[in-house]
Amino acid sequence: MLRGQSIVNGRAAAGTGAVFFGFDPAAGARLEPGFHSAALADVDEAARLAEEAFESYGRLGGRERARFLRRIGEGIERLGAELIERAMGETALPEARLKGECTRTVNQLRLFAQVVEEGSWVTARIDRALPERTPLPRPDIRSMLRPLGPVAVFGASNFPLAFSVAGGDTASALAAGNPVIVKAHPAHPGTSELVGWAIAESASECGLPAGVFALLFDAGTEVGTALVEHPRVKAVGFTGSLGAGRALMQRAAARPEPIPCFMEMSSTNPLFVLPQALAARAEQIARGLFGSFTLGVGQFCTKPGLIFLPDGDAAGVLLNTLAALVRQGAAAAMLTAGICRNYAAGLAAREHHAGVEVLAEGAAADGAWTAPALLQVDGEELLRAPELAREVFGPAAMVVRYGSRDELMTLARALEGQLTATLHATEADLAEFAELVAVLEHKAGRLIVNGFPTGVEVGHAMVHGGPYPATSDSRTTSVGTLAILRFARPVCYQDFPQAALPEELRDGNPLGIWRMVDGAQTREPV
Amino acid sequence: MLRGQSIVNGRAAAGTGAVFFGFDPAAGARLEPGFHSAALADVDEAARLAEEAFESYGRLGGRERARFLRRIGEGIERLGAELIERAMGETALPEARLKGECTRTVNQLRLFAQVVEEGSWVTARIDRALPERTPLPRPDIRSMLRPLGPVAVFGASNFPLAFSVAGGDTASALAAGNPVIVKAHPAHPGTSELVGWAIAESASECGLPAGVFALLFDAGTEVGTALVEHPRVKAVGFTGSLGAGRALMQRAAARPEPIPCFMEMSSTNPLFVLPQALAARAEQIARGLFGSFTLGVGQFCTKPGLIFLPDGDAAGVLLNTLAALVRQGAAAAMLTAGICRNYAAGLAAREHHAGVEVLAEGAAADGAWTAPALLQVDGEELLRAPELAREVFGPAAMVVRYGSRDELMTLARALEGQLTATLHATEADLAEFAELVAVLEHKAGRLIVNGFPTGVEVGHAMVHGGPYPATSDSRTTSVGTLAILRFARPVCYQDFPQAALPEELRDGNPLGIWRMVDGAQTREPV
Repeated sequence: MLRGQSIVNGRAAAGTGAVFFGFDPAAGARLEPGFHSAALADVDEAARLAEEAFESYGRLGGRERARFLRRIGEGIERLGAELIERAMGETALPEARLKGECTRTVNQLRLFAQVVEEGSWVTARIDRALPERTPLPRPDIRSMLRPLGPVAVFGASNFPLAFSVAGGDTASALAAGNPVIVKAHPAHPGTSELVGWAIAESASECGLPAGVFALLFDAGTEVGTALVEHPRVKAVGFTGSLGAGRALMQRAAARPEPIPCFMEMSSTNPLFVLPQALAARAEQIARGLFGSFTLGVGQFCTKPGLIFLPDGDAAGVLLNTLAALVRQGAAAAMLTAGICRNYAAGLAAREHHAGVEVLAEGAAADGAWTAPALLQVDGEELLRAPELAREVFGPAAMVVRYGSRDELMTLARALEGQLTATLHATEADLAEFAELVAVLEHKAGRLIVNGFPTGVEVGHAMVHGGPYPATSDSRTTSVGTLAILRFARPVCYQDFPQAALPEELRDGNPLGIWRMVDGAQTREPV
Repeated sequence: MLRGQSIVNGRAAAGTGAVFFGFDPAAGARLEPGFHSAALADVDEAARLAEEAFESYGRLGGRERARFLRRIGEGIERLGAELIERAMGETALPEARLKGECTRTVNQLRLFAQVVEEGSWVTARIDRALPERTPLPRPDIRSMLRPLGPVAVFGASNFPLAFSVAGGDTASALAAGNPVIVKAHPAHPGTSELVGWAIAESASECGLPAGVFALLFDAGTEVGTALVEHPRVKAVGFTGSLGAGRALMQRAAARPEPIPCFMEMSSTNPLFVLPQALAARAEQIARGLFGSFTLGVGQFCTKPGLIFLPDGDAAGVLLNTLAALVRQGAAAAMLTAGICRNYAAGLAAREHHAGVEVLAEGAAADGAWTAPALLQVDGEELLRAPELAREVFGPAAMVVRYGSRDELMTLARALEGQLTATLHATEADLAEFAELVAVLEHKAGRLIVNGFPTGVEVGHAMVHGGPYPATSDSRTTSVGTLAILRFARPVCYQDFPQAALPEELRDGNPLGIWRMVDGAQTREPV
């Protein structure tokens, strides 16, 4: 029942741009129907309606916004097998993975619903008036977070549900009170359309203005660029490549009114095996590592791509186990033939780099199909050629051998920003390498001990972020409830009469939220 | 006892660039000694030492950082009359204002000391492991805010103490655990040097690495540019003009590793007088408004520069009172002759704009001396020529007459981002104009009822920020304790053993801070 059309104003928008198709990468077959790229007039219309919708949606109470988010979740659940089948066809991802991702997407919407229903996320603060203060009385000052305005969200290729049309960016932006315009990823247009209608219908069922959500298709980059440059768009959420993300960041920064950009882009997720852990658990670490860097054909932003091991024989068991697993690794289809070509090119560039050794490779493959690979380089060469430490999107990992503890510290300090850094370590290792942990804290958004970075919990404490180029703004996360803070700003109300204040800031605390009153956390009325 | 030299590594740095002098704008006289512009090698050295210092200072406990901030406050207080006299000479600001600003600066350092001593600002969150969860167990995930790294701070001309060497940007960046490199504003180099040594000596007395603070002089823009582009600098705090701020934003965005910029730049601070308030308090509003827009010779970022009044006779008393006050307004010296020239040019451009009427002007003046001015334009002309709504830095205000409520809403919607928006209104006015309040919420960081925007409280609830061009990032404030959040990022610790966790995240909660544990606020141990 797919129409192949964008959604603007709650209706299918014909679109006058190029037609493109979904594509089954495993079968190498085109999927019907054709999708019509949106016109620039559709971008304009979506942005105008979003701005209009913002005046009411931005002031809607948390309970009403929660209802909308829950309704979207129900709508996605109702899509059921139809959604999973289309997503399987468009991405070659297995059914169990997509079912899990669907559950995660729905749970994420429900988690944000809880957050805005509970309401304390707005960081309400009240400094009461001090009329007797000298030399000047203090006025009554109250502040809380308010939404930014229309947000442009770019769907990611590698999470057709959880980082796409109703993914974390959309959920957190809607939760904070912002209308959302999604630019669908062209690798899964059918999946995007199905979820897009679930959102648009939920908006209608909840009596919200249709401008609160739009979905735009485009075979190329014109629509995305126009969205980021549109004067009515006030923030951007993006998950994708460093090249595309950086280009959009520059567009956003060059606008007459620059806007905040939250791009999650590129990370090699270094993993350090420390001596005592290596001695105790070499084979177990190797098996876990293989599972992690080949999970989903290596197409996770948190794939561990750099593995730091000491020179010499100590790492032998780990390397042998890992190499054997890679050699047995079956070929699998990547998300798109283009991603597979990029993977092959990135791998070839490394394999031909002097000083890089191929430790093992899986079975040969063609089309969108590929197999795992394990490379090795020594630390000195990595310092000479830091491009070797950049992300290769696919099931490859690079072992980095280092000669001394000092060299390890030099290598760690030379790392770029990362989403994650992982340590396999005993408690004694951690104490001995405390300086390494301290350096990694400055490099990554999440540090993991004795686990693997793939698998990102959606919770209150999660940070899926990190210094550039991992993201465009290390001060934020794109996963977990803290993600809502990206799409809000503090607004201060000075000497407002009670009736003119938002409920969150009224003396009686009618919503029962946590607030800071005269510097102290409390849920009591003022 | 001034040396006229930058401070790097806790020592005077000779500097090899151009020599420049402080200047008494009231007397038109040069002040000794000459100040030596820093060399690019000094920038490099300061950045290298700051990065080194960060490894220890960034991990220092809140109590130790609080001690440092308090020591700086004491050092500034000890400077006493010497500091106030030099600042008076360099800025022509009156003694009482500078004494007040000094108290504010010291209190601000103490307030941030309290915040980091108390410790809850780090937003600690703990999601405990769920080993029995299916299909996958949940790991233990904890997160908290961590400092960013070396911060470049640009002193502002109009607050030689509170927004300068030891001002709000420095205080909040140091409080969060970041080393600071200040680029002194060349309009008050002596004041900057005195305060700079107070910080450097406090660092030494507290046993901190000298790289935690540096002060750099420059007659031009080379040092500031080099700082923003320096790979070891990780964030920027700036208060100044839109032109300079935007230029530095572009430099920061074009770096190989873009960094966050917090620029406070430009605002005309619209003030709306609503009908019932106008009928009730016209003269009182006029007197308050005159005091506010001429305070400090109009050299406040929060100066109310646009005054919205209805067409017709209702505004007569207000306008007559205001015009009479302006005509009696004495000439006063501005901060610098250059600022005075810019003011004169901005005023002349508006006076010569067709449709702009000069309602009143104060006495003629020359050199750095100027007098207040009151202009008027109708709403239609303002919509045609939106440049008339841009900030004029100095004691001028523009009355905007509007014909209807619809026209007022159109004018409000056309406003750019602002630090503040003010309403003079009865409760009935506020109810009737609720739509205006809703629009202004999207335009400004702080909304004020029946007060005036000059005078910015340093407290927990204050927001001194707003959409571009008021600031570069509406999601932050540069005044008040929320300002500390600009210079920190969340870091997540997954499955860390207790001993390897920061104190803030340990089960026992040894610091007794507020934390979110499994979604609920608590100060209890886990």
